[in-house]
Amino acid sequence: MTVRALIFDVFGTVVDWRGGVIRDGESLSRPDIDWPAFADRWRGAYRPSMDRVRSGELPWTNLDGLHRASLDELLPQLSEDERTFLVGAWHRLDPWPDSVAGLTRLKQRFTISPLSNGHVALLVDMAKRAGLPWDLVLSAELVRAYKPDPATYLSAPAFLGLEPGEVMMVAAHLDDLMAARAAGLRTAYIRRPHEWGPDGSAPEPGPDDKLDHVADSITALADIL
Amino acid sequence: MTVRALIFDVFGTVVDWRGGVIRDGESLSRPDIDWPAFADRWRGAYRPSMDRVRSGELPWTNLDGLHRASLDELLPQLSEDERTFLVGAWHRLDPWPDSVAGLTRLKQRFTISPLSNGHVALLVDMAKRAGLPWDLVLSAELVRAYKPDPATYLSAPAFLGLEPGEVMMVAAHLDDLMAARAAGLRTAYIRRPHEWGPDGSAPEPGPDDKLDHVADSITALADIL
Repeated sequence: MTVRALIFDVFGTVVDWRGGVIRDGESLSRPDIDWPAFADRWRGAYRPSMDRVRSGELPWTNLDGLHRASLDELLPQLSEDERTFLVGAWHRLDPWPDSVAGLTRLKQRFTISPLSNGHVALLVDMAKRAGLPWDLVLSAELVRAYKPDPATYLSAPAFLGLEPGEVMMVAAHLDDLMAARAAGLRTAYIRRPHEWGPDGSAPEPGPDDKLDHVADSITALADIL
Repeated sequence: MTVRALIFDVFGTVVDWRGGVIRDGESLSRPDIDWPAFADRWRGAYRPSMDRVRSGELPWTNLDGLHRASLDELLPQLSEDERTFLVGAWHRLDPWPDSVAGLTRLKQRFTISPLSNGHVALLVDMAKRAGLPWDLVLSAELVRAYKPDPATYLSAPAFLGLEPGEVMMVAAHLDDLMAARAAGLRTAYIRRPHEWGPDGSAPEPGPDDKLDHVADSITALADIL
């Protein structure tokens, strides 16, 4: 089955969430805060807060709402304006150096879209600022189901009028790709060794992961495809 | 309130549905069929077929499904392949000569999206083929409510994180714009005197219509804005 569309995880795969959060944090006059450590803790609260929505404990809440709630717990000393500004940092993340060039090349041959747990407004703000040339913007918000819910992955072929096997999920995270594969999608892994900073590390995929492709960047994926 | 996003009716406003249907019809070897007359009758079945979905008489059916049902009634002599091909014509419509240039200019300053009764797959196919540079693709399909349902119009500011008054509906049809205005959106009317062919005519808007803007093309709207 020929791949017709590529859908991308965004945070960590296309954009550098950690660098963007640190940059906007350091622009505040708060020398008492260790911004790199905070960025990691904030990101660490991401999956548990989505799990509370997935379990039904919380009603549907978009990522701004989840980020705000975890920020309120992590940095209660910030003012209202500072909190609003920091939640907005996720709308202002910079792409990795290869992202715009790689997406621009892939767009010539495939339909390209995010498939992110970020909501539509966040993804549109990010794309406009960073020049991400999406054909459309798919989001967990459209089906009110956060990845790794199979409904989120299956929404992409459904909206695009394609079979799951005609759609390839591109991500820097194995759990995202394993869930996409379980839903019948194809998979491409992008190595992002600096997602968690210079000292970060990510598990290297192995042959048992049955990925369709592994690449060092989105431009390298374009070379392969 | 500053306008931040422009959302566009597509069929008739951005693309020439009549010319595209006639072109694909004439490519079939069916000299017995008057394709211009058929195109008008097919389009004439559009609103009544959506009204059957809106009333609940039909379950949610996308535009391919509605087009196919009305085609089956209008041209029962066609083969299965010919019917499939003609339903696909709506994915292959050409833009008006000013559309790509006008959208490209407006995209520099505004978020631009279709807000069409066409489904996502149709709008993406059309945009890829015609080079329509949408930032995202909004559709009645996302809320399963066909225009002029207020829910369709209100979905655009909701997904974009904007107030209704920050979003402007752009259309060549007064009924679409009146419904958008009733939902709190701003309005811009584009004159498309050839939408219904050389002998077609559309009602000219008057001051009572309280439109924010009236323009002869999308490039003219870019000049105004």
